[in-house]
Amino acid sequence: MRILGIDPGSQRTGVGIIDVDAKGRSVHVFHETLTVLGEGGFPQRLKRIYDGLCAIIAEHRPGEVAIERVFMARNADSALKLGQARGAAICAAVSQGMSVHEYAASEVKQAVVGGGRADKTQVQHMVSVLLGLKGPIQADAGDALAIALTHAHTRASTARVGIPRSAWRRRR
Amino acid sequence: MRILGIDPGSQRTGVGIIDVDAKGRSVHVFHETLTVLGEGGFPQRLKRIYDGLCAIIAEHRPGEVAIERVFMARNADSALKLGQARGAAICAAVSQGMSVHEYAASEVKQAVVGGGRADKTQVQHMVSVLLGLKGPIQADAGDALAIALTHAHTRASTARVGIPRSAWRRRR
Repeated sequence: MRILGIDPGSQRTGVGIIDVDAKGRSVHVFHETLTVLGEGGFPQRLKRIYDGLCAIIAEHRPGEVAIERVFMARNADSALKLGQARGAAICAAVSQGMSVHEYAASEVKQAVVGGGRADKTQVQHMVSVLLGLKGPIQADAGDALAIALTHAHTRASTARVGIPRSAWRRRR
Repeated sequence: MRILGIDPGSQRTGVGIIDVDAKGRSVHVFHETLTVLGEGGFPQRLKRIYDGLCAIIAEHRPGEVAIERVFMARNADSALKLGQARGAAICAAVSQGMSVHEYAASEVKQAVVGGGRADKTQVQHMVSVLLGLKGPIQADAGDALAIALTHAHTRASTARVGIPRSAWRRRR
């Protein structure tokens, strides 16, 4: 199964793709940061996110998409910008007929680091360890890979026990 | 010229289409309210907005798109939801290769009623008068028609004077 993780933002959208084999092992396939800062007006920026993701989906053909759920943004202005970027990213996935799975930040930290209160540096470090990456990668692309890993772990544990683990139940 | 106006929302997205002839007269073509309340998860709702708009664009083939610019939402949570709906709507337009024109609420009121402080009832009333509609129409579809009319008026006055009117200059 090939999983696409997306960490949308109005300036930078992180994209990460992993493959998960039958034993639940994850392998790094691709990562990229779509930077749209200063490129034309806002509709043009959303187009860049949408087109960029559509091109990546067409090239790598992931089977499922995972994206971080946002509960609360800092303020109304940044929430509006983030929401638009998120809407563009989700539309790129659903327009290709893909289902989108949402995970809270605490679920990503729990899945990748083992604790819901882990900091960003720990998450980035564990992404590199789990996928055997050499050297640091851009933070948004790293977050996208973390979200893809979260979906991989969730799928694996759901398949193993036959029912959702209680930790995931609230999400459904 | 056929103009598509969109008033996006996370629960209801208003859609309005008008034709503008060479003399700047506007004729009503179509209006609809896409209601997505309670239809599956949020990605499925965005898909409904995206697919609904793509179908309307494919059927009516508008040449230009106008959408209301949002400066500030009530709070971060509603801003995020509105942003996502707005991102889906804009992506539906840009994915079909259309340019998107944004107008502030005050510009819509100025264009349709003649005063930037007009209330919503006045705007709805003038939309019906300008387009010769019989009876009331749903508020979001009415707002979408008002945005389309604003773009029609702006194009007409820009063409007439050769340069943007000072009132529009800030938008560019």
